[in-house]
Amino acid sequence: MTSSARVGMVGAGQLARMTQRAAIDLGVHLTVLAADADDPAVTAGAGTVTGSPDDHAALARLAAGVDVVTLDHELVDRTALQALEGSGVAVRPGTRALAVAQDKLLARETFAALDLPGPAHVVATDTAGVDALAAAHGWPLVAKARTGGYDGRGVVVVDDADALATVLAGGGAWLVEQHVPIAAEVAVLLARRPDGDTAVYPVVETVQRDGICHELVMPARIGAPIAAAAVANARRIADGIDAVGILAVEQFVTADGDVLINEIAVRPHNSGHATIEGCATSQFTNHLRAVLDWPLGATDLQAPYAVTVNVLGVDGADVADRLPAALAVPGARVHLYGKRSRPGRKIGHVTVLGDDAEEALTAARRAAAVLTGSGT
Amino acid sequence: MTSSARVGMVGAGQLARMTQRAAIDLGVHLTVLAADADDPAVTAGAGTVTGSPDDHAALARLAAGVDVVTLDHELVDRTALQALEGSGVAVRPGTRALAVAQDKLLARETFAALDLPGPAHVVATDTAGVDALAAAHGWPLVAKARTGGYDGRGVVVVDDADALATVLAGGGAWLVEQHVPIAAEVAVLLARRPDGDTAVYPVVETVQRDGICHELVMPARIGAPIAAAAVANARRIADGIDAVGILAVEQFVTADGDVLINEIAVRPHNSGHATIEGCATSQFTNHLRAVLDWPLGATDLQAPYAVTVNVLGVDGADVADRLPAALAVPGARVHLYGKRSRPGRKIGHVTVLGDDAEEALTAARRAAAVLTGSGT
Repeated sequence: MTSSARVGMVGAGQLARMTQRAAIDLGVHLTVLAADADDPAVTAGAGTVTGSPDDHAALARLAAGVDVVTLDHELVDRTALQALEGSGVAVRPGTRALAVAQDKLLARETFAALDLPGPAHVVATDTAGVDALAAAHGWPLVAKARTGGYDGRGVVVVDDADALATVLAGGGAWLVEQHVPIAAEVAVLLARRPDGDTAVYPVVETVQRDGICHELVMPARIGAPIAAAAVANARRIADGIDAVGILAVEQFVTADGDVLINEIAVRPHNSGHATIEGCATSQFTNHLRAVLDWPLGATDLQAPYAVTVNVLGVDGADVADRLPAALAVPGARVHLYGKRSRPGRKIGHVTVLGDDAEEALTAARRAAAVLTGSGT
Repeated sequence: MTSSARVGMVGAGQLARMTQRAAIDLGVHLTVLAADADDPAVTAGAGTVTGSPDDHAALARLAAGVDVVTLDHELVDRTALQALEGSGVAVRPGTRALAVAQDKLLARETFAALDLPGPAHVVATDTAGVDALAAAHGWPLVAKARTGGYDGRGVVVVDDADALATVLAGGGAWLVEQHVPIAAEVAVLLARRPDGDTAVYPVVETVQRDGICHELVMPARIGAPIAAAAVANARRIADGIDAVGILAVEQFVTADGDVLINEIAVRPHNSGHATIEGCATSQFTNHLRAVLDWPLGATDLQAPYAVTVNVLGVDGADVADRLPAALAVPGARVHLYGKRSRPGRKIGHVTVLGDDAEEALTAARRAAAVLTGSGT
């Protein structure tokens, strides 16, 4: 064995799987904290520590053999990570940045303190505040769970006070936000080293359905001033929370051309799949380089457009059986995560590069439809 | 687990390691037959059967759990593979194609039967033939071991009859060939499915030193007619030996513009490293697609030039320690194989894409020099 750099990643999903692919290139040894033996990063061959991200002992086992601990999701016990940090383990992103990603109220307060624009919001228990929000912006409003939401879970558009009351009756801490009239959703990904050195990816346009990201177009088809505003927002957050690794800043573009912060992730992000083939250095490679405090790679686009269509499970059928047919679609770069197909579950994605975004999307959608059994 | 396709690969070196990277994308489960626990594909997380490529029982264990058996090198017992084929296991490439790659005399006879040009040659035991060769072409001649040579081993330029006698006194079966005045060396890689469907990569220029490939320039800086001849040669061999998977055909371009077949490989090849970033589909991905009889991916260049500089070990120092400095070279896409550095051992490579071959080579050489401790 050589003295390869060793990275521990909490979580073993598809983001960790694609990080394993990047680790192979760099000669880095990746170990993941996995709940199950068939998690995507485990079947991709990452070293494995079995356990829950809430299990202090499991996190300590992960940390014991690596140079740095990082994340493929934020649903991790921050207290345990703080304990690791306290014992001298490098945890990147740090727990301060993680806290902002985990807690939507802290996030809103942090963005406001950084003088960044976001939707008007109140905590749901502030009934006078909710009334004022409704008076100012009108119903519907948006209820957001303070913590734990992802892929549309924890976000509910509420049409009136009764609907909000029903959501709150389910328990948990919630924010209530203005329902922003969205012209486009975009994400800015950047990689940032501990010293602040940063590499920013082209702004990506994300097409959401039911709160799940379905399609990506890079670069986003928005005007240059809007793109510049989105990038400036992301840079300010990165520096403000001292992000290390990939930071993804999801933002709303309004019909008026305003750019509002939606939420952030402090790890490789599903809006960055197109960086694998579309950019000189993928988000997964740059995440490893950033958390290891190595020089970052260029993020230049390798084609005028790189688009991605996510593949969501629709039934119990095995998507692998349909892979050969999908590969027959010209230009389709298919990624499968080795996950069993279940309705709505992200089981793969298709990226296509091209000169024209719509043509590339057509090809990527076709391959994705073949994989889900809804196209030929 | 899903019913992922399962591929078994004999050998666990860097070619298998880079195949594991491709397998992750496709959701394919790769298992390698490895001699050692620290072989490059093993540390990259491929499934592992431990054993020698000469061990019939180990090959049977590898074959037991997979859909198809393939190779990362040709130093494998063909009798054992034939036994697997006889028992109904899909072995791709088949043993007929493998035999041609393993035996330089059979290769010369096969190429001649296909009416393809090659250096004049005789078997070394044919002393009258050697005399005639020397009379026709003059000394030096080239002695080539019939089997088992690689990376310059088994190839000796002999200045006279005494030098040849010394080589032959060492034992083994040898050919003696005309010493061709080489203007350039090129390789044509193609992927071929069992039904003959073929995807051809751009011709690559290979720069050898001491019989080891040091640098690659894709596309080769040769005229279009020469490139077309090289591609035609490769296609004819592929069809002639019924190659399946990647076929690499190494060829000499003479000062007169003749294109002569040197030798072939029937697996992913070190002259194809630049296809990872340089082509729409890497040789490793297309090797998997070909041996699984899946539609092949496009081989288009992603930039005007893709060049690769191999990183050869120079001492016992750990190249991983120098990786961060190498990553600071703009445009350098560094691949490390997780191998300990030993003099002359291939431990990694650097690919750079660009508009200008010499500029790209300068950057790749600089990063490679940093990795070997001979540059900054």
